[in-house]
Amino acid sequence: MSDNGTAKIIFQPSGRRGEVEKGINIIEASRRIGVDIETLCGEKKVCGKCRVRIEEGSFEKFGVVSSLDHVGPWQEEEDKFITPDQKKAGYRLACAAEVTGDLLIFVPEESRAGKQVVSKAARDIEIKWNPAVRIYTVTLIPPTFKDPVGDFERMTHALEKEHGLKGLNIDWFTLRDLPNIIRKDEWTVTAAVWMDKEIIKVWPGKVEDYYGIAIDVGTTTVAAYFCNMRTMEVLDTVSMMNPQCKYGEDVMARITYHMQNPGGLERMSDDLIEGLNDLIRKACEGTHPPKKKKKGEDGKIVKNKDGQAVMVETPEEGKTYLCLETSDIVDLTLGGNTAMHHILLKLDPQYVGLAPFPPVIHRSLDIRARDLGININRSSNIFIMPNEAGFVGADNVCVLVTEKPHMSEELQLIIDIGTNGELVLGNRDKLISSSCATGPALEGAQLAFGMRAAPGAIERIKIDPETHEVDYKVIGREAWLKYSKPEEMKTKGICGSGILDVLAELYLSGVVAKSGRFSKNQKSNRFRKNPDNPRQKEFIIAWANETSIGKDVVITQKDIRQIQLGKGALYTGCKLMMRRMGIDKVDKIKIAGAFGTHVAKDKALIMGLFPDCDLEDVMSVGNAAGDGARVVLLDRDMRDEANWISRNVEYIELTVEKDFEQEFMESMQIPHMKDDFPHLEGLVPEEILHQK
Amino acid sequence: MSDNGTAKIIFQPSGRRGEVEKGINIIEASRRIGVDIETLCGEKKVCGKCRVRIEEGSFEKFGVVSSLDHVGPWQEEEDKFITPDQKKAGYRLACAAEVTGDLLIFVPEESRAGKQVVSKAARDIEIKWNPAVRIYTVTLIPPTFKDPVGDFERMTHALEKEHGLKGLNIDWFTLRDLPNIIRKDEWTVTAAVWMDKEIIKVWPGKVEDYYGIAIDVGTTTVAAYFCNMRTMEVLDTVSMMNPQCKYGEDVMARITYHMQNPGGLERMSDDLIEGLNDLIRKACEGTHPPKKKKKGEDGKIVKNKDGQAVMVETPEEGKTYLCLETSDIVDLTLGGNTAMHHILLKLDPQYVGLAPFPPVIHRSLDIRARDLGININRSSNIFIMPNEAGFVGADNVCVLVTEKPHMSEELQLIIDIGTNGELVLGNRDKLISSSCATGPALEGAQLAFGMRAAPGAIERIKIDPETHEVDYKVIGREAWLKYSKPEEMKTKGICGSGILDVLAELYLSGVVAKSGRFSKNQKSNRFRKNPDNPRQKEFIIAWANETSIGKDVVITQKDIRQIQLGKGALYTGCKLMMRRMGIDKVDKIKIAGAFGTHVAKDKALIMGLFPDCDLEDVMSVGNAAGDGARVVLLDRDMRDEANWISRNVEYIELTVEKDFEQEFMESMQIPHMKDDFPHLEGLVPEEILHQK
Repeated sequence: MSDNGTAKIIFQPSGRRGEVEKGINIIEASRRIGVDIETLCGEKKVCGKCRVRIEEGSFEKFGVVSSLDHVGPWQEEEDKFITPDQKKAGYRLACAAEVTGDLLIFVPEESRAGKQVVSKAARDIEIKWNPAVRIYTVTLIPPTFKDPVGDFERMTHALEKEHGLKGLNIDWFTLRDLPNIIRKDEWTVTAAVWMDKEIIKVWPGKVEDYYGIAIDVGTTTVAAYFCNMRTMEVLDTVSMMNPQCKYGEDVMARITYHMQNPGGLERMSDDLIEGLNDLIRKACEGTHPPKKKKKGEDGKIVKNKDGQAVMVETPEEGKTYLCLETSDIVDLTLGGNTAMHHILLKLDPQYVGLAPFPPVIHRSLDIRARDLGININRSSNIFIMPNEAGFVGADNVCVLVTEKPHMSEELQLIIDIGTNGELVLGNRDKLISSSCATGPALEGAQLAFGMRAAPGAIERIKIDPETHEVDYKVIGREAWLKYSKPEEMKTKGICGSGILDVLAELYLSGVVAKSGRFSKNQKSNRFRKNPDNPRQKEFIIAWANETSIGKDVVITQKDIRQIQLGKGALYTGCKLMMRRMGIDKVDKIKIAGAFGTHVAKDKALIMGLFPDCDLEDVMSVGNAAGDGARVVLLDRDMRDEANWISRNVEYIELTVEKDFEQEFMESMQIPHMKDDFPHLEGLVPEEILHQK
Repeated sequence: MSDNGTAKIIFQPSGRRGEVEKGINIIEASRRIGVDIETLCGEKKVCGKCRVRIEEGSFEKFGVVSSLDHVGPWQEEEDKFITPDQKKAGYRLACAAEVTGDLLIFVPEESRAGKQVVSKAARDIEIKWNPAVRIYTVTLIPPTFKDPVGDFERMTHALEKEHGLKGLNIDWFTLRDLPNIIRKDEWTVTAAVWMDKEIIKVWPGKVEDYYGIAIDVGTTTVAAYFCNMRTMEVLDTVSMMNPQCKYGEDVMARITYHMQNPGGLERMSDDLIEGLNDLIRKACEGTHPPKKKKKGEDGKIVKNKDGQAVMVETPEEGKTYLCLETSDIVDLTLGGNTAMHHILLKLDPQYVGLAPFPPVIHRSLDIRARDLGININRSSNIFIMPNEAGFVGADNVCVLVTEKPHMSEELQLIIDIGTNGELVLGNRDKLISSSCATGPALEGAQLAFGMRAAPGAIERIKIDPETHEVDYKVIGREAWLKYSKPEEMKTKGICGSGILDVLAELYLSGVVAKSGRFSKNQKSNRFRKNPDNPRQKEFIIAWANETSIGKDVVITQKDIRQIQLGKGALYTGCKLMMRRMGIDKVDKIKIAGAFGTHVAKDKALIMGLFPDCDLEDVMSVGNAAGDGARVVLLDRDMRDEANWISRNVEYIELTVEKDFEQEFMESMQIPHMKDDFPHLEGLVPEEILHQK
């Protein structure tokens, strides 16, 4: 046992250990020790994802005597997620169990927060070269008694004479570098100028290439596009999980974390900023071509005083390539949803979480890199994308900057499905937006076996209409179950893009009726009542021997209800917006985000996720949010346009629209039964489509 | 003895002690332990002011065994300042002696850096109310579903509607305070707006008074004028020694300290900023009226969580007064000479110290308080006055902003005497400036008994023309010697304003000839050859028994030469500038700075410090630099004017002017013998004026 105030904790199977003060819960202990435990609900004891097992005994090797007595009292919320047998075996919810002494804790695989598979490659989009930061080289005449004018004025006179730049300012931090830099290469200097008005960096001599990064901060994933600002080339795309996931899976969980934990906002922001700095460093270290070096061809790496790689000589080409220092990044743009925006900027997000959901600010911000703690050139101004509304954030502005519906004749419906659905409808005449509480089910969360798009997640499924036998494919494995041995599948759960597939197949095969209920006549032994809760019906997707968690992966009646709620919310949103616009048909449907990339359009239409449309006119626009951040990085006029969009798209609060509840109730059915889905013909068997 | 790497040091008589690493010199040890030792030359071993005595023996009380063996080897430069007898007694130069073991060090009184008497009261000057920062109060309508616009836009819409402010930005740090502050007092909020474009502070509810500070950073003295920005009232003037004095008395010594000590620039800047923060805190704590409280009437002081006084209740008036928090200061202006400007801003000052002396920047800067580390409202932009030239800095711009010679018909000569003389000549048609190396003698430095204007310094003197007996007055004592007992005088040396007096009296009484040499026939026993250096003649001003240092205070032939060099440089500057302008007479002479306040005009004219002028037209303009910083604090148009001045006053480098050396040689005589001093008639006895 450690001394009175602290306790030694060891997490298995990772073996990570550390000492923490008593009184914190196991989740908090896991964070401090660097172990990732799932906590989808943000420690509200309602998701049950953070189950861990306390091991009893004396573990001399570690100097730990662990005991069930070393955790705080059992809490009634734990009864929901932990059976009496499990309780006896030492299971607790990590968010409910307080550390009161030394502990050896086992984290079961399903409770481990896995690394997500991220697909955020940069798209080819047309961008005008008009960056906010440009560089200019001048050669100065050294001062004399007849012309003793100061360094800054000497440089700005030359910049005005040779490049027409008038009235330039300079940031103090750059000014401090100036006197020695202009004398370093015989009075030749290259200046980076922001918005034609402020000098934010000086290099000795002539510089030709310069660099910027566009970052899309998602609730779950953060992606950075590393660009050569001269050529507009995307040199690298790097991404990571949003480090805030450990504080809660969705935006409301994080807002709650802020409200319940003093200093929580700063902690979440600082974690993200630390993550962004890692991402930026990675991008800089990876910029030396050739990108695909074989092992043993690494070339000679020259490092600077900080141990950072600066030059790489590749003997086979006889060339030297420059690795960048992070201080060579002169511009950076950031976009995200309103809650991510607020949490990153340490703006109190509590009001954006409360009706009528006003954000702290709509318009874009220019924040010095040093103020934000982002490790790029310290004088640079980071461009923060504007927000449309409390639940329609900069990520949506990014989508609109890229998709430009306000410049089009066609009536477009743009759908960005995340935990929150964001909708934009209209054309050059008018644009309206709204958000709908699709809930986390469409992303695979809060389902019995829902999980993120990580290895082991079911992403595609087929159910035989006759036998109701199941075939499926998991992320990280090419072969479907049919072509694999069961134990090779290592299935863990179902991810977002798989969810619609699963439900559509259940429906198409008749396992589930249009109402969303399991049909009465079930042919296969995959249908059963839950052994622990006989009132809960479920359908087995993967048998225990196909999984890495040792139990059947099922979809329950409750899960199906969750999915129906999500898809119903989205459809209701689309429908009420169309009613507002006075239209009953759209010309194009664009689905943004990872969901759009992975979802099968036909399955989405079958589910009634969006209004009827020719599948030819339904398209995925990929990570439009990331594209938008890249557009404003390279074309400063688009920054004004983003601000214009953020203030000229009319936000509709759907929940206060007339008949909202009635519409929502109707929208939950599968498929939508009205005659407004002509394009379903041929996609769904007649007997299914017209069943009662 | 302490362990291998460190040594224990005790300084007497202060008794301050500490542990330092071996290898540093005693000056550096004194800095770290917080003892002030004079070092006029910036540790170049040329001023001899830092003599200290090493005490030998075992000082058990302190656990120190001190020995002459615990200092590094004797250096030949020390021979100049320390006699063989003194050497035997343990004297060393603190800048030359290295700490190699435990030491008990005695600092003689003449080596202690004293606190200077500062006279920097604010003058009554006419200023237009047009501050860069203004405050506005608005009451907002809370958000609804029909109007869910964000907090920032809600406030700026109201500021535009009610106060006509368009396109306002907000600093990120202020934005972070916004959501909770606008909800604190029923949606009424007061915003501080900088330059009609950026919100830099928000308070809940209605605020009427707001505050700013103007600071004059002198090489020796720093003065802060604390102003109510609404009423323009100067609430308080606080001042301090420039904490950089310990790195060297004059600007060249500090530039040298920077060049010889890695990190020296940052250290000097940080010390000054720490001092400025103390000054600001003092100003804020002292702002509660009534200003003159008697003892025992202190009232009840309410302190905030940081222990800072917030409210004072004075029972006799039944009123409550607000003490300010430093974050309530919303604007701050700073002016100083070019070297002080550069060192404060951590701009490499080495080039400004090398011909042709180009500064790093001329124009003004707006630097965020948080960037500079100044503890006022963190979003505020500190206005840094512009520089004219390498040796004509923002202090001179301040003088011109206040005196406005560019708006006058009269030909004015403005003289700012410091270690460096700064001169401006002209009127609305043309203004030229220059600087001249007056040297430190006119400020009392580098003379045998020169010292700062601190208690014990001789500031006035009379010499009987018949007997050559001396009467004088010291700072800190009203009564002249004649009316005092000798031991009451506690004389220590001669300060800047006393120097001209001394020399003029020596000249008027015939002790010194017009050439500056001691006359051949000396009547009094005050004239002697220096006992240690018989070739050096000297005149005793104060006998040892009148002093607190136990030795005669004398003025030497060498001292007189130094003063002649200083006054000659200044006069040459004035004359060459007048030649440039093609004039032989000026309408007004204005003397700025502390020197101007203290010097006797008649003595200055007798010495030929400046060109001939009716004494009626010679005036002191006090601390015009401080006034200038106050003008730009309260009238933002004057900021533009300051920039205009800094670029439109033509700088003349005197040393490259034709006949400079010839003119300089001639200007060193006392008094200037040419016929161009008609106003000397009546001031100087005929026999003295016309002696050969």
